[in-house]
Amino acid sequence: MSVNPNASIEITAFSWVPEFAQGVVRDLRARWALEEAGLDYRVRLLGQQRPPEYLQEQPFDQVPILRDGDLCIFESGAIVQYIGEKSEALLPRDSRGRYRAIQWTYAALNSVEPAILNLLLIDIFYAGEEWAKLRRPGAEEFARLKLKRISDWLGDKQWLEGDRFTIGDLIMVTTLRFLRHNEMVAEIPNLAAYVKRGEARPAFRRALADQMAVYAANQPEPEGAAA
Amino acid sequence: MSVNPNASIEITAFSWVPEFAQGVVRDLRARWALEEAGLDYRVRLLGQQRPPEYLQEQPFDQVPILRDGDLCIFESGAIVQYIGEKSEALLPRDSRGRYRAIQWTYAALNSVEPAILNLLLIDIFYAGEEWAKLRRPGAEEFARLKLKRISDWLGDKQWLEGDRFTIGDLIMVTTLRFLRHNEMVAEIPNLAAYVKRGEARPAFRRALADQMAVYAANQPEPEGAAA
Repeated sequence: MSVNPNASIEITAFSWVPEFAQGVVRDLRARWALEEAGLDYRVRLLGQQRPPEYLQEQPFDQVPILRDGDLCIFESGAIVQYIGEKSEALLPRDSRGRYRAIQWTYAALNSVEPAILNLLLIDIFYAGEEWAKLRRPGAEEFARLKLKRISDWLGDKQWLEGDRFTIGDLIMVTTLRFLRHNEMVAEIPNLAAYVKRGEARPAFRRALADQMAVYAANQPEPEGAAA
Repeated sequence: MSVNPNASIEITAFSWVPEFAQGVVRDLRARWALEEAGLDYRVRLLGQQRPPEYLQEQPFDQVPILRDGDLCIFESGAIVQYIGEKSEALLPRDSRGRYRAIQWTYAALNSVEPAILNLLLIDIFYAGEEWAKLRRPGAEEFARLKLKRISDWLGDKQWLEGDRFTIGDLIMVTTLRFLRHNEMVAEIPNLAAYVKRGEARPAFRRALADQMAVYAANQPEPEGAAA
């Protein structure tokens, strides 16, 4: 369960990203799932400018993809589900438990992430634009409603479906972490504790450390240093 | 394979929605998948104001949910995948084919739908607002890029993975239909033909007719008519 250049499973990741993205790029989800499942993997690094032929593997030009033998798939949700099916530690085997976990994976990606990323884009990418200033209150309110829905559901449960961590939690925790630039999650005690529980898992910590180590090793030269 | 009050599978749907939403509410995805799979289902209708206890079934207060025996799940992506696993007509049995289909389901919901719904909200819900006018060009450009990515991938293929229709196509076609209020899909010949192929399937037509029949039967009285 570590990065191993001879592993049969390969994922793609960026060799470096700007600081605001470090620690949240989606290969983290694949890495975390692989660590939880106890599977070795190798990493194929890509620059910010992907080669045109990468679109044959990933039509939306994103990371990660996963290769395992003749299987090649994209979308972090599908990748995490694929890894989950290899490991009961991530995905229960009974139909009910299995589909409750899968539903939360979809919920995080379709009912929560768009509201959160919308706010992140307003705050980070479009902060100076007039429309972003005008839109921000409504976008924040919508993201807060999503957080409230998850918090109400969680109550005092440890994970979304009770005592057992699943791929649904893995995707939900990494989705909530996109809001690390503000206090919206921190202000909701049970939700903040839920994210902390996820981040405290040894598999998460290894995954994050391995992602960050790549960026540290590929830090661009400061401008002008190449004189 | 029709609506049947004695069926064991139950989905939720709205008894009525305003015209702009008729024919695209997400219970359509569940209905279409059930029709493709040849499974009877019953429908539990909800008003626009859901009872508070519905949050116990659907934490985000959306439709549809699916019940099948003691299983109760939400999120159209998870529901369609669940139905797909009951029918090879929707989800190939081999691991590679299966995961290529699942990846497209996630891609439609996470990499395409947010860009499309963002534009739909700007055009329909927030049309009069200043931020919406300022934001629209960028939002349209981003949605067009997504459409181009799918069109480039499709090429002259019939479905996303070739000759065989899967849950990935079902979710992608219903996602692209959110743009029916403008010509953006119509302007891309292979994408327009792809959506039309989906809409021409008998299962889709039955699903759409059954959804629309509910709205027709529950049309609100025109205001003042109750005099």
